[in-house]
Formats: sequence, structure tokens, C-alpha cells
Amino acid sequence: MAIHDLTSERLFVDSALAQGARVALSEDQAHYLVNVLRSKMGAGILVFNGRDGEWLARLIEAKKRSAVLEVTEQTRQQVNGPDIDYLFAPLKHARLDYMVQKAVEMGVARLSPVQTRRTVPDRVNLERMRANAIEAAEQCGVLRVPEIGELRPLSKVLDGWDVKRTLIFCDEGDGAKNPLNSLTSVRPGPIAVLVGPEGGFSGEEREILRSKPYVVALSLGPRIMRADTAAVAALALVNATLGDWSGNWK
Amino acid sequence: MAIHDLTSERLFVDSALAQGARVALSEDQAHYLVNVLRSKMGAGILVFNGRDGEWLARLIEAKKRSAVLEVTEQTRQQVNGPDIDYLFAPLKHARLDYMVQKAVEMGVARLSPVQTRRTVPDRVNLERMRANAIEAAEQCGVLRVPEIGELRPLSKVLDGWDVKRTLIFCDEGDGAKNPLNSLTSVRPGPIAVLVGPEGGFSGEEREILRSKPYVVALSLGPRIMRADTAAVAALALVNATLGDWSGNWK
Repeated sequence: MAIHDLTSERLFVDSALAQGARVALSEDQAHYLVNVLRSKMGAGILVFNGRDGEWLARLIEAKKRSAVLEVTEQTRQQVNGPDIDYLFAPLKHARLDYMVQKAVEMGVARLSPVQTRRTVPDRVNLERMRANAIEAAEQCGVLRVPEIGELRPLSKVLDGWDVKRTLIFCDEGDGAKNPLNSLTSVRPGPIAVLVGPEGGFSGEEREILRSKPYVVALSLGPRIMRADTAAVAALALVNATLGDWSGNWK
Repeated sequence: MAIHDLTSERLFVDSALAQGARVALSEDQAHYLVNVLRSKMGAGILVFNGRDGEWLARLIEAKKRSAVLEVTEQTRQQVNGPDIDYLFAPLKHARLDYMVQKAVEMGVARLSPVQTRRTVPDRVNLERMRANAIEAAEQCGVLRVPEIGELRPLSKVLDGWDVKRTLIFCDEGDGAKNPLNSLTSVRPGPIAVLVGPEGGFSGEEREILRSKPYVVALSLGPRIMRADTAAVAALALVNATLGDWSGNWK
């Protein structure tokens, strides 16, 4: 782990990346580089597209509303993190932005908003979620931008569940159990982590979740936590036992 | 763990709490209850002072700028969390507020800002930190408000170190090791967790830290993390292995 280093510019682009490739930036990106950062011709910028690793590129054309980079050399091979779906009841506005950023830093593969009984927002702005996920990946050097799922009701999510994927459910009614003991019983394979809304799951939802053979309940101690805190805490424990912090993961 | 329930009002007060005690609220608290929430006479409010547990109290006098509660019954015994000092390089403004809130939710005993080579703010607003810590404790039902230390240089902090306290140092240069293996080697006792600035520790700081017999280096995986994310992640792993999430802690 490295704590965020703010010094290098890193941009997500859609185009394929290879030595000599030219990349036309979006209008926003061009504005940011040319007008905000006042980058000069030849300036080095890191680029990634979620597939081809990270590359150093040089600014070879800079106008007010458009800019072109030429890709010069690969700086990092593509690395994908562990196969973790992050399922969560969406929060409002700034707290949702924050939670999305945190989940990206924790290396999840997919962000799947879930409608529960006590979920307050009944729709989510998927474009905004995607923009936030890209920004977090740019800032934190993550090379895989998580996929973003549509908001779905919890019942539908469970109906279509692939039983090979273990669903780790952060259970606020389960304060006494050692979370590491719960996680060490999980068999290797794809994982999902589910964090409920502020206000918790309903009794019925908890019962349904706990009845599923693929569900593991996870306790996060005796204190009340905000949902975005629970997200980072749960993903840290999962990464340390089953994900790519454990040294066991390939 | 319970995910934050926003329904009950909970106020931190200075006065001693016991059945029948009367508590005069501060002007801000009176304004909030009377003018913002429009609480009526007899309304129930939870109060705590960091020492006497949590009590239900009733509003018995409500003016524009003052209000008095009468304490009726204890709702929770005082619980202190584990003996964890949280040492951190302060961040700017909103990110520092956020980090303080998160550390309170994670149940630390003390918040100790540390000046490192690459720390950007060279002073911190301790009053603001304390107000944030109280607000987080109020909102998240934490009964112990962490003590707030003065900003001190890392070298001074280490010079005066009590060697019985293990210092868990989040080491961004140590990405390959399993963090749980590092923590299971820690002997039971008082703990401190140190998270560096965005930009990391200097090479010299890392060397000095790693040379101390009471220091344990902790890796938080291969990705770059923001300092506030690293704080929650490290404290989750520490709570799960050595703190009060583990079921071993008394």
C-alpha cells in the first residue's frame, strides 16, 4: 500500500493503449490539462483504460477544447484486483460519492447498488457513480475501474444469485462474533460484500439473508458505524483474509 | 456493529449524570433542541459525558438560549473501547474532519496529530477536532470521546515513547506482507496506530520507525489509498485482531 501521492497526473481514456498510439482527450480532459494545469507540449501524463495497463504519454497537440497525447512507454502492466462485488444500499449525494471512492480504493470489481426496505434514495445517478469511480481510479492509481450495476431490489439480487459466489453480509445484529473467524470459513472463490442502509436491514431481510447457504454474516464490533465506514472496514477484513492483501491471492 | 441509526437525539454534556440530576445545556445545544428540532417539554433526549454511561433525560425547561434536562434513567453502562492511540499526520480541512469522525467510530482512545517531514498543515485546530470528535460520538453512540493531543513532531513522539505500547505503523513501502500475520505477532497490551501523510513517510522516517523494538510495520495491500481510507482499514484490522471486535478483548 502506498498512501496517495498527489504529484502525477493520471487520466482514464477509452482508446486502446500501445506504444506510438495517439489518444484524443475529451473536451473536459483537454480543458483540465491545457487551461487548468497549463501543461506544455511534451508534458508527460499517465494514461490507463482499464485493460492495457498504465502508459506514459506526451502532450503533442494542445488546443483550448481538444488535446492529443502520444503514448510512449508502458509504466505498469494491467493488474486486476480480486473478484469482489460490492453491494450497497445507496446513500444520499456526497456520502454516496465518498463511498464509491472508498470502494474503488479498496479494489472492488463491481459496484452494485441494492434497494432494501430502508434504503432512502429510490434511484441512483449511475453516470455520477461512474464519474466518481473513474476519478478515484485516476487519483489512487487503480488500473481497473469497477463496473457499475443498475439499482436492483434485494429480493431480485438474491433470486438470481450465482451460488458459487459467497455473499458476505455485514450484519449489525451480530456484534459478538469474531469477524476473522467468520471469514476464514469462506472457501476460495468469487466474493460479494453487502453493506446495508443507515438504519439497517429489516428483521425479515436479515432472516432471508441468513437462511441462504451462500451467505456468511460478518460482525464489525460493538459500535454503531456509518455505512461508508462499514464499507471500508468490511473490505479491509475481506482483502486481508480472502483478497489481494493476503499474499495468497493470485 | 450497528449501522448508524439516525432516529434518536444524543447529546454530549459535561455535568455528572445520575438519576434526578439536572443538566443545563449549552446555548448551542439549547438552540438546536428548541429552535431547530422544536422539541416539546417532556421530550426524551439521550445524554452522555464520557464517564457515567448513557442516560435518558427529559426536557423540563426550554427557552430560546437555554434549556434544562432532568436525567431519568440509565440506558447504557459506560463502555470504553480498547486502549488504542491513533497517531496521524493531519490533513487539510474537510478531510481531517472526516478522518477524526472515522477514528471515533472505530473506537480509539486518543487522537494524536503528528508532524512528519511531508505533513502539509503545520498546525491543527484542536477545538475543531474536539467538536468533530464529540459530534461523531453523539451520532454514532460512542460513549467515550477520545482525548485530543497537541500536534508534536514525530521525533519527539518517538523520544518519549512508552515501550510497553506497541506502535503499529502503516508502511506504504511494505505492500507484499500479509497484515494479519504482522498483527498476530503483537503481544496483548496498549496499542498505537500511526498513519502517515498523503505523500508518505520519508525514507529516513521509515528507517527510524523500523529500527524501534516496539514498532510493527503493517502492510495494507498493493493499491494506493488516501490517508483517511488507510485509517479505517488499519483500525479495522487492529480491532479485529487486538481490539474489541475480536471477542478476546475485555
